[in-house]
Amino acid sequence: MTEPLALGIDIGGTNTCFGIVDRRGRILMQGSMSTLGHDTVQEYIAALSKELTKAMEQVDIERVIGVGVGAPNGNYFTGEIAYAPNLPWEGAIPLAKLLSESLHKKVTITNDANAAAIGEMMYGAAKGMKDFIMVTLGTGVGSGFVANGQLLYGHDGFAGEIGHVISVRDGRMCGCGRRGCLETYASATGIVRTAHEWLEDREDDTLLRKDKVGLTSQHIFNAAEKGDAMALEIFEYTGKILGQTMADAVAITSPQAIIFFGGLAKAGDMLMKHVQHYMEANLLRIYKNKVALLYSALPDVDVAILGASALVW
Amino acid sequence: MTEPLALGIDIGGTNTCFGIVDRRGRILMQGSMSTLGHDTVQEYIAALSKELTKAMEQVDIERVIGVGVGAPNGNYFTGEIAYAPNLPWEGAIPLAKLLSESLHKKVTITNDANAAAIGEMMYGAAKGMKDFIMVTLGTGVGSGFVANGQLLYGHDGFAGEIGHVISVRDGRMCGCGRRGCLETYASATGIVRTAHEWLEDREDDTLLRKDKVGLTSQHIFNAAEKGDAMALEIFEYTGKILGQTMADAVAITSPQAIIFFGGLAKAGDMLMKHVQHYMEANLLRIYKNKVALLYSALPDVDVAILGASALVW
Repeated sequence: MTEPLALGIDIGGTNTCFGIVDRRGRILMQGSMSTLGHDTVQEYIAALSKELTKAMEQVDIERVIGVGVGAPNGNYFTGEIAYAPNLPWEGAIPLAKLLSESLHKKVTITNDANAAAIGEMMYGAAKGMKDFIMVTLGTGVGSGFVANGQLLYGHDGFAGEIGHVISVRDGRMCGCGRRGCLETYASATGIVRTAHEWLEDREDDTLLRKDKVGLTSQHIFNAAEKGDAMALEIFEYTGKILGQTMADAVAITSPQAIIFFGGLAKAGDMLMKHVQHYMEANLLRIYKNKVALLYSALPDVDVAILGASALVW
Repeated sequence: MTEPLALGIDIGGTNTCFGIVDRRGRILMQGSMSTLGHDTVQEYIAALSKELTKAMEQVDIERVIGVGVGAPNGNYFTGEIAYAPNLPWEGAIPLAKLLSESLHKKVTITNDANAAAIGEMMYGAAKGMKDFIMVTLGTGVGSGFVANGQLLYGHDGFAGEIGHVISVRDGRMCGCGRRGCLETYASATGIVRTAHEWLEDREDDTLLRKDKVGLTSQHIFNAAEKGDAMALEIFEYTGKILGQTMADAVAITSPQAIIFFGGLAKAGDMLMKHVQHYMEANLLRIYKNKVALLYSALPDVDVAILGASALVW
């Protein structure tokens, strides 16, 4: 018998990546196209379907038993992408339905951080774990909570928004309309906001001052690597807020590990030594020295595609 | 065939209550004894076993197929009660093992708030719900999280300690050794601490001043009912902190409802209208107007006994 395959799709604000995956997590082939440049979501779906059909024909279209999609604000229960600030479509898009009608395959959708959590659980750093938190530190902060071996969806499919836990009461304005959300501090954009605030408020000499226009998290990392005091302090400040917030999350789900993924996670120990320190310092005694902080064990693109494809199995 | 029965035990800091329960949640008989006054845990177990055996003999000891226990810091995985500050025994007590050896029945244990959550799910306000949070507002604050129809235990059995989420960064000293835990504000003792702090710091005329010695949450409630401005403000302050913290918890598990139980929950609308207001004001848009705040639908003693007995089924 020919082995069944799954199609995994990762819809990002800029690119849509996809891959055809077997049960063991081997990506047989992969491709991508731009998420942007389509006038309507229908045109996007038409263009995507064409690419996907081409890909499936190369392995035998009948072997592909289903399609899994990871997308910002993707909802597992409704099949919709609802009000995703980083995607070009407005309102609630019935993406699973549209794609299913076009491909004549069953389509399952979840949000991108949940897909990453499933990918890590099946093929990555969380293999064999039943209780862990996946945290994506990108432009924003996303999360997927796994408990008792299952992804937490909540009653409406919207569980796991740790990026919008209030880390600093009455803190920075967030794109969601509230103040002090974790993602206004502990994301690639949040760390840049910290730098801009400090450059404004402080006088100390720092390499960051010359990069002020067009400053990115990469500049801050590079400066920290060179021993720049303000850049190092920014990483400590960011790690403190992230560590404190993770300590509170641990008090709710008591995970075996927290797995970090995404651009800012690449700062590695520069950030994580502080996350570790401040998380431990803020943990209730029964949780101390028990929660492992880990990095994703899969290549960036693969995590999302593998996780999305795993929805099929 | 005779219907099987379960024995449910609720171990509190003062009293140990127990009941024999059928599958439909009918308590066929119940009793209690003091938790205190036993020199060692062994003597406590011996005295308890005697009471339980007497009770079981009245219904037919063979029909009782198992024993469930709810206790502060009870751990479902290890069967131990570990470092419970409100119980008279020190260290980790292998309670399930001791009681099982004494009664010759299978004994399962969990913490008191988890037991209450199971009780509400099987017989109370959460009947039919798959995603909810149970919050007990007593001397401390406890919680049990149910997601996908299952209690969240976490990897070590210690999940669900919302009482020790940091609600106020660098806030009040907590018995756990850290600062700003929810239970230092939103418990029967927390609300009294608020009153004492305010009586100390402020000059306004209030009924609470004459009750200052021996002040309880009941005094504050009575004063608020009479329209006392400070007492009313204390309930708003308490509800604000509780509401803000629940908003953060919602962002993690997205529950259908939060169910409140315990002494301070009896303040009813006096507290809950503020919890509702501040929770909604702090919720991310996707969660707004979706989370019901409910009260336990079971009599106080019954919740704990029913929940503990439900561990058996």
